[in-house]
Amino acid sequence: MKQESAQSSSITPAKTGYGLLDTISSPADVRALRLEQLPELCADIRRFLIDHLSVNPGHFASSMGAVEIIVALHYVYDTPSDHLFWDVGHQAYAHKILTGRKEAFANQRKKGGISGFPSPLESDYDTFVTGHASNSISAALGRAIADRNTPGKENSKTVAVIGDASISGGLAFEGLNNVANNPNNLLIILNDNEMSIDANVGGLHTYLSELTTSAGYNKWRSKLYNAFRRKGVVTEEGKGRIQRFANSVKSLVSGKQNIFEGLNIRYFGPFDGHDVIKIVKILNDIKDMQTPHLLHLHTVKGKGYRPAEENPAKWHAPGLFDPETGEKICNDAKDSPLPWQEVFGRTLVELAAKDDRVMGVTAAMPSGTSISRMLAEYPERTFDVGISEGHAVTFSAGLATGGKRPFTAIYSTFLQRAYDNIVNDVCIQGLPVTLCIDRAGIVGEDGVTHHGLLDIAFLRCIPNMRIAAPADEKTLRNLMYTSLHSDGPLAIRYPRGKATTKDWQTEMEVIEIGKGRPIITQQGAEVAVLTVGPILHEAKKAIKALEEKGIKADLYDMIWVKPLDTELLREIASSHKAIVTVEDGVSTGGFGTAVSEWCRNNGCDIAVHILGAPDSWVTHGTVAQLRHDCGYDSEGIEAAVASAARTLS
Amino acid sequence: MKQESAQSSSITPAKTGYGLLDTISSPADVRALRLEQLPELCADIRRFLIDHLSVNPGHFASSMGAVEIIVALHYVYDTPSDHLFWDVGHQAYAHKILTGRKEAFANQRKKGGISGFPSPLESDYDTFVTGHASNSISAALGRAIADRNTPGKENSKTVAVIGDASISGGLAFEGLNNVANNPNNLLIILNDNEMSIDANVGGLHTYLSELTTSAGYNKWRSKLYNAFRRKGVVTEEGKGRIQRFANSVKSLVSGKQNIFEGLNIRYFGPFDGHDVIKIVKILNDIKDMQTPHLLHLHTVKGKGYRPAEENPAKWHAPGLFDPETGEKICNDAKDSPLPWQEVFGRTLVELAAKDDRVMGVTAAMPSGTSISRMLAEYPERTFDVGISEGHAVTFSAGLATGGKRPFTAIYSTFLQRAYDNIVNDVCIQGLPVTLCIDRAGIVGEDGVTHHGLLDIAFLRCIPNMRIAAPADEKTLRNLMYTSLHSDGPLAIRYPRGKATTKDWQTEMEVIEIGKGRPIITQQGAEVAVLTVGPILHEAKKAIKALEEKGIKADLYDMIWVKPLDTELLREIASSHKAIVTVEDGVSTGGFGTAVSEWCRNNGCDIAVHILGAPDSWVTHGTVAQLRHDCGYDSEGIEAAVASAARTLS
Repeated sequence: MKQESAQSSSITPAKTGYGLLDTISSPADVRALRLEQLPELCADIRRFLIDHLSVNPGHFASSMGAVEIIVALHYVYDTPSDHLFWDVGHQAYAHKILTGRKEAFANQRKKGGISGFPSPLESDYDTFVTGHASNSISAALGRAIADRNTPGKENSKTVAVIGDASISGGLAFEGLNNVANNPNNLLIILNDNEMSIDANVGGLHTYLSELTTSAGYNKWRSKLYNAFRRKGVVTEEGKGRIQRFANSVKSLVSGKQNIFEGLNIRYFGPFDGHDVIKIVKILNDIKDMQTPHLLHLHTVKGKGYRPAEENPAKWHAPGLFDPETGEKICNDAKDSPLPWQEVFGRTLVELAAKDDRVMGVTAAMPSGTSISRMLAEYPERTFDVGISEGHAVTFSAGLATGGKRPFTAIYSTFLQRAYDNIVNDVCIQGLPVTLCIDRAGIVGEDGVTHHGLLDIAFLRCIPNMRIAAPADEKTLRNLMYTSLHSDGPLAIRYPRGKATTKDWQTEMEVIEIGKGRPIITQQGAEVAVLTVGPILHEAKKAIKALEEKGIKADLYDMIWVKPLDTELLREIASSHKAIVTVEDGVSTGGFGTAVSEWCRNNGCDIAVHILGAPDSWVTHGTVAQLRHDCGYDSEGIEAAVASAARTLS
Repeated sequence: MKQESAQSSSITPAKTGYGLLDTISSPADVRALRLEQLPELCADIRRFLIDHLSVNPGHFASSMGAVEIIVALHYVYDTPSDHLFWDVGHQAYAHKILTGRKEAFANQRKKGGISGFPSPLESDYDTFVTGHASNSISAALGRAIADRNTPGKENSKTVAVIGDASISGGLAFEGLNNVANNPNNLLIILNDNEMSIDANVGGLHTYLSELTTSAGYNKWRSKLYNAFRRKGVVTEEGKGRIQRFANSVKSLVSGKQNIFEGLNIRYFGPFDGHDVIKIVKILNDIKDMQTPHLLHLHTVKGKGYRPAEENPAKWHAPGLFDPETGEKICNDAKDSPLPWQEVFGRTLVELAAKDDRVMGVTAAMPSGTSISRMLAEYPERTFDVGISEGHAVTFSAGLATGGKRPFTAIYSTFLQRAYDNIVNDVCIQGLPVTLCIDRAGIVGEDGVTHHGLLDIAFLRCIPNMRIAAPADEKTLRNLMYTSLHSDGPLAIRYPRGKATTKDWQTEMEVIEIGKGRPIITQQGAEVAVLTVGPILHEAKKAIKALEEKGIKADLYDMIWVKPLDTELLREIASSHKAIVTVEDGVSTGGFGTAVSEWCRNNGCDIAVHILGAPDSWVTHGTVAQLRHDCGYDSEGIEAAVASAARTLS
């Protein structure tokens, strides 16, 4: 997997030399320590994390920030009889290290290694898969109520640890709204990351200072102010978020009454989330409560590693770095193409410059989707709505009713949260919302919760929806331009990673909706390979390799999943004896199924072999490894075409 | 459409005789009235609604409650240049009547008539399709921001009218959390329905009385108490909801600061939502505000019709009634079978009695899904979580991690809101959550936003999911029993309306997963009809009719969409020359596609004709009419089989 070398390293971190941590193989060993030893253990864990994550990248800053919370929880609670839910799960590395996965940690996120997120398949200490934000309260509430209703388990404890970003999602609100509805002993820990301030948030500071309210509020204010101002700032744009988080502070803190107490959840805090001895004492005090309770802890993202503390956003998932200097190690070739999202982001700015109707929308991923570029140029027409994908889509629909042309960029896996919004608010009304589906297909190391494999299948069944996948930058740009100049919903999906060329900045033009194109056609080819998206390039390699073996196959870039180019399809079906379809998505109900469905409904009796992700969960590894395992890298395509050709002869 | 006669009447209400309303053909006519005439207009509208809805059923109580709000909005705002968003849309009948659809109202919810929900296709006064709760704030915010950014429209006003149940959904919270994030002039009207109190809520009363808080709170309390106590009571079960809504009140009202002000939305209220003159004055006062603002109005569901005021839950959608006496007119045959949901609800109680692990979960539909039966018998194991389908599913997953067996009953159309929860929280972990998908297929009069046509397609692509559709009560019961005695997620879909037999209470047994059954097999049949779900009975009729015409066809009840009975399928394919599949769902990516996909992948070169809903939106009408239009009632099936047979000969 040489092409993935930028994200791995030949250095293996030492297995021992981490002081107290060397003596820990399970939480029982943690509980055997004296209370005053815990700070030392935390320091040892941090050294371990730095050593490991510098050579085998992962989520760094949030993991460093949650060390004391994790140590204290395992010290006080009787895991795994008591249950911990991590939201989002990538903060839980220290939990993995303490629960028997210290050795395995050297292979975290690698194929065959442990997952970067909690996984019950991996350990009894992992109660729930938590890769998508905001699900912990609902899930943990279910577990707490289940235990309470199970003979012998009535005294089990359940804890949800949720970040201050995760708690802003609609699902978390639904959970909070239901917490006190039935008897249970759930503890919610709000892991509230403090961040350094920058000039942008002067307005927030002034705003908060001017609030007149009770002594209770004033007591809270200074701490909460720090805790929440991160939300306005972390991301590069800041401005748009300030007001919202000022609001959150005001609603969270309101004199003697705060929103959690209002929801009938006993509130404790805020306390220093890095004072492990104090956290242990508090947890011991509250752990036998028989009603829902929330502990608000104040932490620092990247705690214990200065470069990360100073710039936690950049250290969220930093890749390889030199642990001594904090310098990032980038193995990228200097002349490599831009990532797909970067082409998207820059193209969006071009469109916005030409057309006032263009609006940009993202849900907490301005940098990830590169909508940050439009936010910088056109802040009043660009909207980061936070972790609320449902709102992002419905809000976009509202913009569209007013004649605007929203480009709504959401990762494929997170678009699943906006399904009803796509159906009801966009497609029933046929509104011109362009869904820019980022990270479509296999994403690699983030694994099962983050692959974007379902979108073609779940969108294809919706009337009025159009779906396209560009194989190159030029087509991506033309699709965006075409969407702007046509009516109705349009979904454009593109993967994580580098696009194809340095010369991406082509003149944009309207292309025909539902029109594919031949890529390779040769005399005597009996098999036609049909692709959508950049998997085309794997198919090209396969066809070249086959040619050397004397097998001829044609290649078509269909571009559109819906509407299908049925004219081209009829032509292909009549001039070939077998079709092989390839897509970076599930083979159940996706592009291949659409081709097969159409052929069967229209009397084209040609064999259709569908290559795509299987009807089972794809785990983690490099993109190349996982595509290989799914059988749709160039080798898999080559084998499928050769097999189809053999059947014919 | 005789079989639907219980829901129609031969009486046509008078077209005139409604006083001032006779003079109104558009909102301009309303605005031409003197302020003091508005109460009279409201009374006329109510007479009109009673006359019409008694003979042509629809949503009654909420429509009666919103009359003054609607009249006042059209009086003050310059519709349709100003924009109104109704959440949920079924409260907006008076809006339809005032905006040019008075004559058309006699045909509301009928085929070819106007929709029961707002629809931009129908009128420029309907800004947005609002059939699913909680979307109005997000959509209206988009519209308000779009207008503000459009030359010439900067002064347009946007109003979202949202009920107190709708505002509790996670999407509404995401909307509220974003309202003050960008400059806009959005007005949110909280239409808060008062209900009569019953003995159940004594605990709430005590609880609220004991709250110690500011003068501000005490001033609010008496009004809000009335406003919110409905939430604990309306539905028949009450108990479980009390605590949640006590919480809502506490969080909503907290001294000088309330949650809306906390979110930086200016708050006005609560005021009497039936004092139309006062509402007009308030709206005139606040309509030029350039920042988001919320007006809290206190209304009575069913206002102006005593039977409905006294029992608003029963008058939500009462069907036919005698306007003089309030007596419901039920044309149901006395010995007709139970509705599907009733069989489900009673079976769930039986299972709960036998097995402590059984839990019942619903999202605000205890009566609709008949989970109310389990709630009555086993309140501590039954959970109504309010309008929060995402939470319902993730909470169920949490219960399942604790060894419980949740049966989670959600209407097909609303399950779309829980898509990511099904994928991430249930299916990735393979948890034994039984999704009981009610109102699957065409639902009839509620129309485009309420049909449950997508579930097979959007669930089929998810690894680990199993999907079944019973054709009769016995199979429904066996599927529920089987789910309880097997591992992993299972979705059981069943439609709105009556099941098939009076003798439904059969002994339950475990049936084989993925096993279909032959229903009709006859010598010489070349066409095989494959169905899932009760559409089987339409197919039976078709085959009987065909037999009389000399065409033989076999019939199979496949029961399972996933896993498919591939053994049976291979047998069918080898002994027939054509397959016709029938499903009450979209034909793009559903059951028929699964059959076709499998045949194509497994070398069965048999023609597969897929009958199901088309790849376009199905509107409203009776179930029979709509099935006919979609071509999968007995006539449609008959024609498809005859055509397939003709092609073969």
